[in-house]
Amino acid sequence: MGSLKKSGGVNGAILSRIATNDQHGENSEYFHGWKSYDKDPFHLSRNPHGVIQMGLAENQLCLDLIKEWIKENPKASVCTPEGVHQFSDIANFQDYHGLKEFRQAIAHFMGKARGGRVTFDPERIVMSGGATGANETIMFCLADPGDVFLVPSPYYAAFDRDLRWRTGVEIVPVHCSSSNNFKLTVEAVEWAYKKAVESNKNVKGLLFTNPSNPLGTILDKDTLKNLVRFVTKKNIHLVVDEIYAATVFAGENFVSVAEVVKDSEVNADLIHIVYSLSKDMGLPGFRVGIVYSYNDSVVSCARKMSSFGLVSSQTQFMLASMLSDDSFVDNFLMESSKRLGIRHGVFTLGLKKAGINCLISTAGLFVWMDLRHLLRVRNSFESEIELWHIIIDKVKLNVSPGSSFQCTEPGWFRVCFANMDDDTLHVALLRIQDFVSKNSNKTAEKASDNDQVIQNNNAKKQKWKQSNLRLSFRRLYEDGLSSPGIMSPHSPLLRT
Amino acid sequence: MGSLKKSGGVNGAILSRIATNDQHGENSEYFHGWKSYDKDPFHLSRNPHGVIQMGLAENQLCLDLIKEWIKENPKASVCTPEGVHQFSDIANFQDYHGLKEFRQAIAHFMGKARGGRVTFDPERIVMSGGATGANETIMFCLADPGDVFLVPSPYYAAFDRDLRWRTGVEIVPVHCSSSNNFKLTVEAVEWAYKKAVESNKNVKGLLFTNPSNPLGTILDKDTLKNLVRFVTKKNIHLVVDEIYAATVFAGENFVSVAEVVKDSEVNADLIHIVYSLSKDMGLPGFRVGIVYSYNDSVVSCARKMSSFGLVSSQTQFMLASMLSDDSFVDNFLMESSKRLGIRHGVFTLGLKKAGINCLISTAGLFVWMDLRHLLRVRNSFESEIELWHIIIDKVKLNVSPGSSFQCTEPGWFRVCFANMDDDTLHVALLRIQDFVSKNSNKTAEKASDNDQVIQNNNAKKQKWKQSNLRLSFRRLYEDGLSSPGIMSPHSPLLRT
Repeated sequence: MGSLKKSGGVNGAILSRIATNDQHGENSEYFHGWKSYDKDPFHLSRNPHGVIQMGLAENQLCLDLIKEWIKENPKASVCTPEGVHQFSDIANFQDYHGLKEFRQAIAHFMGKARGGRVTFDPERIVMSGGATGANETIMFCLADPGDVFLVPSPYYAAFDRDLRWRTGVEIVPVHCSSSNNFKLTVEAVEWAYKKAVESNKNVKGLLFTNPSNPLGTILDKDTLKNLVRFVTKKNIHLVVDEIYAATVFAGENFVSVAEVVKDSEVNADLIHIVYSLSKDMGLPGFRVGIVYSYNDSVVSCARKMSSFGLVSSQTQFMLASMLSDDSFVDNFLMESSKRLGIRHGVFTLGLKKAGINCLISTAGLFVWMDLRHLLRVRNSFESEIELWHIIIDKVKLNVSPGSSFQCTEPGWFRVCFANMDDDTLHVALLRIQDFVSKNSNKTAEKASDNDQVIQNNNAKKQKWKQSNLRLSFRRLYEDGLSSPGIMSPHSPLLRT
Repeated sequence: MGSLKKSGGVNGAILSRIATNDQHGENSEYFHGWKSYDKDPFHLSRNPHGVIQMGLAENQLCLDLIKEWIKENPKASVCTPEGVHQFSDIANFQDYHGLKEFRQAIAHFMGKARGGRVTFDPERIVMSGGATGANETIMFCLADPGDVFLVPSPYYAAFDRDLRWRTGVEIVPVHCSSSNNFKLTVEAVEWAYKKAVESNKNVKGLLFTNPSNPLGTILDKDTLKNLVRFVTKKNIHLVVDEIYAATVFAGENFVSVAEVVKDSEVNADLIHIVYSLSKDMGLPGFRVGIVYSYNDSVVSCARKMSSFGLVSSQTQFMLASMLSDDSFVDNFLMESSKRLGIRHGVFTLGLKKAGINCLISTAGLFVWMDLRHLLRVRNSFESEIELWHIIIDKVKLNVSPGSSFQCTEPGWFRVCFANMDDDTLHVALLRIQDFVSKNSNKTAEKASDNDQVIQNNNAKKQKWKQSNLRLSFRRLYEDGLSSPGIMSPHSPLLRT
């Protein structure tokens, strides 16, 4: 067998460490939830008792506007009789700079998606295979294997794959907590930086999503300024993933890092933005990811890397036309924000009726739902997973547990609300309300002897409900959740 | 500055080694040639004296058939009034398995593109961002940084980027030579393997293109079988890049590695195929790359990696429909082969008229042109580059020098012939013929005193022409090629 080490199994050492190290993160509960949904997907008429997918941050609220535009603009596609005369040129186009019109349109759209308060240079627009590819690309450009990026937690579960898996970069979380509504502070970053340096880590940068996934919150301008100054002082990078820029539906304006990059105390060479059309436009299938850097060398390097994940020229061509249509874009952004706001309002109000609160948020396609009071054992990640399995298997809603976002406090869940129609959302809310209500009633009857103290105390009615809900959940997991697969001791979350 | 090393320049150590190591290969002459073309691109009417691009292996000969199909199948696009009702589902589709219909159609097409002699399992079809992404993906799956893949030379210039740049994998060339028409032999592979092992390299596999880029030749079944047995014996991988499978226009059938994988002496877990629609269909802009592996773990791992370079769902949807249309595919493949054969015939005949031979080939979108007799100094790579600059700057044809393919014999050039219309090809041939003829005549006049011996010898007429051509080339580079930029001593090719 020459110089090769013999492997234990069929593949063993014959595959790479990356192929065998499991750091793609797909064994996390986050992906497990998706699989449950896949097995029994809800459909209003065909499968009304199926699992409703609330783990997918999709934006389906304004696709009707895009469809209208497509019907009115047949020349925008090379696959229509009206546009096919351009087919050959477009089908052959593989320049990694991208179609000039595409880059211009994207830059223009990025400005509009940030309220028109900043402009972007088309020459700095680098294509990538979705934000997934864009985040990996920027890591490959900035950091060597073993280098560290600080990432505020809770953070997007797939960052473990996107930022680390093939690059070898390490993530050190900057823990945020409910004590200040999970707000990212310079102090928390400084502390994490200091700890990492003390552990002999080579910290290469700070990366966060703004608006935040999974929180749906946005960072205020002062904090952003201070963070930018901090990275300048430490000579480390700042990558801001702004793929939810246009999902802000209430409150203050979203402040892009592009707004503070010209601050005199900033080294712009350290500032990079990741963008995408998957969330703001609702087009994840089209795989439009963007790396936007103020550092010329990074632009040049990332562009070379874009060869590994170029946007289909068919897609570039259509989007170039669509995104340069000012009246369409203006209306789309306004309407999208409005519809997201309404959807968010309906959903959070519905949750409130069931006694469930969420972190106050003004952006995103999800809420950060607080179920701490429903955990069987407070402050226990095991209980979080138990509760989560009940929600999936009994309430039939696929939501995502906070631990899959590396949240340090058990009991939080990300729930997506923009990937379904009004009817489905209605069913989801009914299920939650019915479940809470029915189980409270049932348990109340049974508990009449045991829980007299609580029942007799009207002032503690809300607490009583919660307590009973915990009981009902406990009964449920005792009834139905004893299969070893579901409570696998090898669940990575139990390590959290 | 914390624990960070201070950098010399603005970027220095703040960027990654990958970003600063230059191993993307874009400084090679191969890419330099493209840049020359970009500055002054030929157009029949608008810029008839511009550079003709013959360095790009594009297939534009059958795009009319695709355009016809598109016009007749408006439902195949989600961006037509007829197909837009499916827009939302497709725009949101981001499952890394790909659309089921797409995988089935691709598998079906791959079989047809190999003469229907093999079938492919849709469950093993893994998407990737073009063959560029597919080749990188398979390296990430199979090898660790520092591991070696053996690659027969001459090989596709961008392999240095695709296989090595971000993966850290090393390429050890298996040198093929004109002595046996550059045929890959098991002996050559064994020798390279042995040498690599002796140098303490961890050889993880063998990778080659079949049909060969840049040679346009195909590998016979016996050799393929023996290579497959060799990798089995050594427990190393075999990756066959078959992106030119359907470009075979003459001679024997192309034998895919899929045809020999069931050989009893083969470990199928070691066999992997890279495919793409860029060459066979002429759709490089659509970025359809495929990793097809017989190893379940590799399929699973590559699929996870495909998240970094998924095919746009807009593109998947259209191609699913097009490639499952049997009568279209059958006609396309037959017509494409026929047109490539005619084009190849016209081009090589035209070159012959100018006294230029090519390696005999039966596939590909290019010929491997033998200009060894025109080198100022025989067997000199410096002369090859000189000659190449003359061809670009004076004859105004962007061809690719053999050294950029790691060819060990100076004087060979890859010339693409399928990325232009008949008229442009005609102009290209006229330029070559005129150039050879005019310069031969001029030099013949001047040389009447000096070269009496040769002129008087009718039997050596051909040799005389070549000799004078060398003279004319010499004059040309003395006239026009003295700019330091062009003859940069730092050209990576001088290291070859």
